[in-house]
Amino acid sequence: MAEEHLETLTYRFSEKIVNAEPLNCDRAVINAKYALIDYLSAAFMGAGEDSVDKLLSLIEDEGGSEDVPVIGRKTEASMLQSALVNGYSGHILDFDDVHSDVRGHPSTVIFPTLISLAANYDVSGKRFIAAYIVGLEVMCRLGRAVGKSHYLKGWHNTSTLGTIAAAAAGGYLLKFSVGEMEKVIGFAATQSFGLRIQFGTETKPLHAGLAAQAAVRAVKFVQCGISGTSSVLDGKIGFFSVYGEGCDYAKNILTENWNRSWEIVEPGLWFKKYPCCSASHHAIDAALELFNKYRISTEDIEEVKIIFPPDGDSALIYSKPENCREGMFSAEYVVALALSGQPLSRDKFKSSNIPEDIRKLMAKTRRYHDSSIDIAKDSVPYGRFTIVQLTTEDKRIYEARVDCPRGAPGNGLSLDELKNKLRNSPVSKSAADKIIEVILKLDTGEDLNRLLKLF
Amino acid sequence: MAEEHLETLTYRFSEKIVNAEPLNCDRAVINAKYALIDYLSAAFMGAGEDSVDKLLSLIEDEGGSEDVPVIGRKTEASMLQSALVNGYSGHILDFDDVHSDVRGHPSTVIFPTLISLAANYDVSGKRFIAAYIVGLEVMCRLGRAVGKSHYLKGWHNTSTLGTIAAAAAGGYLLKFSVGEMEKVIGFAATQSFGLRIQFGTETKPLHAGLAAQAAVRAVKFVQCGISGTSSVLDGKIGFFSVYGEGCDYAKNILTENWNRSWEIVEPGLWFKKYPCCSASHHAIDAALELFNKYRISTEDIEEVKIIFPPDGDSALIYSKPENCREGMFSAEYVVALALSGQPLSRDKFKSSNIPEDIRKLMAKTRRYHDSSIDIAKDSVPYGRFTIVQLTTEDKRIYEARVDCPRGAPGNGLSLDELKNKLRNSPVSKSAADKIIEVILKLDTGEDLNRLLKLF
Repeated sequence: MAEEHLETLTYRFSEKIVNAEPLNCDRAVINAKYALIDYLSAAFMGAGEDSVDKLLSLIEDEGGSEDVPVIGRKTEASMLQSALVNGYSGHILDFDDVHSDVRGHPSTVIFPTLISLAANYDVSGKRFIAAYIVGLEVMCRLGRAVGKSHYLKGWHNTSTLGTIAAAAAGGYLLKFSVGEMEKVIGFAATQSFGLRIQFGTETKPLHAGLAAQAAVRAVKFVQCGISGTSSVLDGKIGFFSVYGEGCDYAKNILTENWNRSWEIVEPGLWFKKYPCCSASHHAIDAALELFNKYRISTEDIEEVKIIFPPDGDSALIYSKPENCREGMFSAEYVVALALSGQPLSRDKFKSSNIPEDIRKLMAKTRRYHDSSIDIAKDSVPYGRFTIVQLTTEDKRIYEARVDCPRGAPGNGLSLDELKNKLRNSPVSKSAADKIIEVILKLDTGEDLNRLLKLF
Repeated sequence: MAEEHLETLTYRFSEKIVNAEPLNCDRAVINAKYALIDYLSAAFMGAGEDSVDKLLSLIEDEGGSEDVPVIGRKTEASMLQSALVNGYSGHILDFDDVHSDVRGHPSTVIFPTLISLAANYDVSGKRFIAAYIVGLEVMCRLGRAVGKSHYLKGWHNTSTLGTIAAAAAGGYLLKFSVGEMEKVIGFAATQSFGLRIQFGTETKPLHAGLAAQAAVRAVKFVQCGISGTSSVLDGKIGFFSVYGEGCDYAKNILTENWNRSWEIVEPGLWFKKYPCCSASHHAIDAALELFNKYRISTEDIEEVKIIFPPDGDSALIYSKPENCREGMFSAEYVVALALSGQPLSRDKFKSSNIPEDIRKLMAKTRRYHDSSIDIAKDSVPYGRFTIVQLTTEDKRIYEARVDCPRGAPGNGLSLDELKNKLRNSPVSKSAADKIIEVILKLDTGEDLNRLLKLF
């Protein structure tokens, strides 16, 4: 019986998680700190949105303890409540990180869970960093192990996989045994939820918050001793059979090469430089390159071509956005902003009218799709590129091509750029600097509670 | 666009739900009252279990408002918290109702949701009864519409479908518009969760509580104005595509014959007469028939045969239970109790040792499977029967056969039997009588709040 148990995938995966030692990898630690700065930038900015007030009104009705900070709101709530809001705020603007193996947003689920737990248990900054790296590792491996059909079928990976990853991160933070790790994965996997049909509504970021909340709940169920399965991932009615391609497909992906390479390093996270759809970032960088090189007056521009591979712009659903908010998903809008030398800042994507000068430039802009153009081997995501081509009134042509935009793995943001991302959020510049200072020393004895007080 | 919207399945289903008028059907109303008595019997009995203390300890840590009764615990908690515990208590002993179209337990999800809402909003007893009937209707239709593959794949229908049904019941209770009903179904369906691999652990009843809680949350998301999809059931990545056989399979099942027949009447609910696995109830009734008719002393019994159709006893996994708790899933144990004239009461299924006299009789008992025996057309579930055959020391043979056990549709419990089920729970007899008195008058102006105060 004991030997049989050793054979379960849930056991072997749990054993790898519990014994993970990510702090041995310096690059993983640095990237985790960057991820925390980036998540907080997104969450502080998101916390200013009106819809966060709606969640806070629900929490006020519920009452509850006040021991976990609600980021950017100068208030506190219970572990479950704060996990909900902090996950929501981190994702409401879609300004948070993505990972290609997750096919979704990892940090806005994992960090809120860890923050709720860290505020209630005595854990070190070092352990917090390690738990995040482990949670991300779990989520990326689940993403690969569940197979491509999972997302295509209609699941929202951010929540379906995030619940399990964040629960595992929480278990690691609190130094769960292998048996407890099996259980917490069980409680999380059986709560796994979230449909992509909610995309385009506030329920998409809500999924992130609910996933973080479900992960906290999973940790608490282990702690209070509720009984649950130790082998949720296994067998014909286990997680991978119900949500994926079965266990055989998953098993090696979950268990091989632990402590040798880390998903946070290779391929790594994509931190967004601009608060709009990531599919438009290639075009923005190409347009910025033209602007910075040639400073062509928009009045001298006769025509703008934006050239994609076939379907390369399918997420950019607005060719003629009706307002700046729709501009988040418009290649024409963001290219016009960049060519006009205007900053791609959050205020450019609120529900206001599109200014006349931008509309004029958009009217001269057309999209093209060209399947004959070679793919760059370092393109991110693989196969994607965007070319921006200007023709001036005097018939000169200027062109720039981007295969891997700023922020994507291979073209990562510098620490200064990340610092600016946080400084440009509603948090004060001095608070941003303090937060960054503490985060950068988190693994060397800096007090985690000091950090939480800055939220 | 408006016309396109009218065509969605989510719209048409929501429209049927909002316009449901179940109070026109007297039998539906009576059965709903019986269902409430039955649910409370299970919940009061379940509330005495140690594991309920675990959930209450979590709630104590969380804090929160105290406005909804926690059944059988003389305490109150928030809407979300009470929904969790009341759903858990109702299902922990598996003593709550089942419905064949649900393939799961409806009342232990729907009632806790309605109780949480009723304690916080001004609703009539009449509306409460109607909302329950509507919620059950929704759950049964979802159960048929999602197809048999849903359960077989590994989903736990009680929670996957219960979340949606309870949210729809809650929306009906609060007189949601069609648009709000679409939304609440959306918030619920995107939270749908629960794996059967958790069966046999406390996480099974936990699913019921978490589903009730998710349903309350769905109602609150509508109320606070979070945006969400209006067509969660539709299309290639909608609920029925992800969890079932697609929309085409589901559409007529969800929308036809509303206000003409009700699932609570035909086929109706199964109220359990004995606090043990429903697959053993045929055997119990057959053994009781023999005991009541012949009063044969157990010492005179030479042999007991229990005869099932092939696989008719697959849920009865203990042929040789090690203790009385395992006896919940043992045909041999329950038949021995019945033949000995002992009551099949809750205390007979706790974790104590099996008494010597019962063990002796179990040792003379064997199971048989006979595929040659004709199936009765009123068998419940269809195709099931159990024959108990005694041979005495003096070689006489006595036999009884049951196709539809007491409590099942077609052989329902009388009001007196249901009253006794509640009276035999830990609630005092006088409190039980008061509860029953209020419930029986709930649709004729009796105060719902008076009922809640008796929990």
